[in-house]
Amino acid sequence: MVQARKWVYAHEYDGQPQTSNLQLVTENIPDTLQDGEVLCEAVFLSVDPYMRLFKVAVGDVMQGEQVARVTASKSDSFPVGMMVLARLGWRSHTIVSNTSILEQLPPLGELPASLALGAVGMPGMTAYFGVEEILKPVQGETVLVNAAAGAVGSLVGQMAKIKGCKVIGYAGTKEKCDWLKDELGFDAVFNYKETKLQDSIKEAAPEGVDCYFDNVGGEFSSTVMFNIKQFGRIAVCGQIDEYRYDGKPQTGPLVYGQMLIKQLTMKGFMCRHYFQHWPEAKLQVINWIKQGKLKYRETITEGFENMAEAFVGLFHGANTGKAIVKV
Amino acid sequence: MVQARKWVYAHEYDGQPQTSNLQLVTENIPDTLQDGEVLCEAVFLSVDPYMRLFKVAVGDVMQGEQVARVTASKSDSFPVGMMVLARLGWRSHTIVSNTSILEQLPPLGELPASLALGAVGMPGMTAYFGVEEILKPVQGETVLVNAAAGAVGSLVGQMAKIKGCKVIGYAGTKEKCDWLKDELGFDAVFNYKETKLQDSIKEAAPEGVDCYFDNVGGEFSSTVMFNIKQFGRIAVCGQIDEYRYDGKPQTGPLVYGQMLIKQLTMKGFMCRHYFQHWPEAKLQVINWIKQGKLKYRETITEGFENMAEAFVGLFHGANTGKAIVKV
Repeated sequence: MVQARKWVYAHEYDGQPQTSNLQLVTENIPDTLQDGEVLCEAVFLSVDPYMRLFKVAVGDVMQGEQVARVTASKSDSFPVGMMVLARLGWRSHTIVSNTSILEQLPPLGELPASLALGAVGMPGMTAYFGVEEILKPVQGETVLVNAAAGAVGSLVGQMAKIKGCKVIGYAGTKEKCDWLKDELGFDAVFNYKETKLQDSIKEAAPEGVDCYFDNVGGEFSSTVMFNIKQFGRIAVCGQIDEYRYDGKPQTGPLVYGQMLIKQLTMKGFMCRHYFQHWPEAKLQVINWIKQGKLKYRETITEGFENMAEAFVGLFHGANTGKAIVKV
Repeated sequence: MVQARKWVYAHEYDGQPQTSNLQLVTENIPDTLQDGEVLCEAVFLSVDPYMRLFKVAVGDVMQGEQVARVTASKSDSFPVGMMVLARLGWRSHTIVSNTSILEQLPPLGELPASLALGAVGMPGMTAYFGVEEILKPVQGETVLVNAAAGAVGSLVGQMAKIKGCKVIGYAGTKEKCDWLKDELGFDAVFNYKETKLQDSIKEAAPEGVDCYFDNVGGEFSSTVMFNIKQFGRIAVCGQIDEYRYDGKPQTGPLVYGQMLIKQLTMKGFMCRHYFQHWPEAKLQVINWIKQGKLKYRETITEGFENMAEAFVGLFHGANTGKAIVKV
């Protein structure tokens, strides 16, 4: 038998996630495989805000992606030692019968395999298609992004810079703001905890913003909506300020009037919608990274047993760049 | 001299328009024309809700389109007797120096010239491009439209029916609802004053609506937003419930979360954006009318002196179909 660990959604969230909502469970799984099966051992696991939004049922294993190593195999396609990417949930060891759910890692070369969960994974694809397909900013336009030091936001800002845009970012610590301004080349960066949003937008973009990439929602978004230019575009990607309400509508200024008089386009999207175009997008991101045009950071939490803490930290701004758990 | 009349925006609106906000003014204009000038005499004038949204300055003549007859001319291109369409404002007589602002009427044939202000004019183009370019409904989809017996809404519903959609309409009197259901072939029609919106949507579209054509805004829109399907589209065309607030944001449920989890697209638009495609769109509308596929109504107010009353009536649902003033 193999001693495996998994994280279970044990108690309903009441607001922001707490480590007490989750429970680490140990179980024995067979060490003998059937024909076609492989045993995957997690190397890197992803924690992402969407896991709060799309909850599993109480008692179920937390969902999510991991980079895993094949440690036993009765499948010719997935030999021992191979690294794979899969949505196996928050599990240290998984016996996979249906190997069609296993993906090869993207062609990362010398880059770390954890990037398959970040810049070259779901968050990277979210940034890429949010910019390329939803916002479509052109040279000279102004792009505003919040949670700008996060896994998605930090890439969005840089992709907009690659397109020749002026980029305004919002983050929650001085260190994050310095990173965005000094290393990533954002044009204007504000600590949203220390700045009045309305005033800072007016300062950085007196004529308004063309594109708004929204990871936050709520009051932040409403303020931005009243500072968007004619024909502005809004990509609704994340709502980290809202997940804690579990779909109970929050109130705030209605924005239909802004949509009309400015002829705005707002689009909610998930990167899976563009799944068939991921391979070429991943190649593009890898090239940008190799060319030094796209920088990334990872906040790595060591130890499978600390996964809940890493997840909870997302909602308090603990991470810069992609939050990764290393087993 | 010619005795002309015009309507001036005399006193700032405080909420919904009142006739006391507007003032009828008589003036004498010269009856001798310079070379190239024409004298236009209004035949039909348009009153539209947008005139409340986009206000002129106090003291200025009310803006708007009219169908006029050329009654004196020193221009070879616009001989006496010719009918033209132009944004001349709420004026009975206008001397036009720059004749480039005069348009020929669309090829209406036997149809009334007033249609150039309605189904074959701005409201028709609004409906057409809102359906064709913003909502893009396909056969079998469900389309919801409010102010459904209005100049725009009544056309939107019929254009969606032409595309093979299921159409749900909301209007404010039994007579309007009967017209929509019995004559225009809407699939489900509700009197919004007598029905709970949430319940009626659930009844008519238990699985939600695919497309929402919004002429109203406010609370109505928020309720619909929570009853839209995955990948739904929202055309924000009018906000007649909101204009009275003069841009002061109203509060209500925030919809960013709905935008995200359902991957919705919301687009504010004005039909002028598609101006270069109006000629072919007008031909299409004329053909549909001639084929009996598109029906229209006009609520005609007789007398230039009653124009303010016709305008005020828009905000109380006085009109069915297009509100027109006949001089």
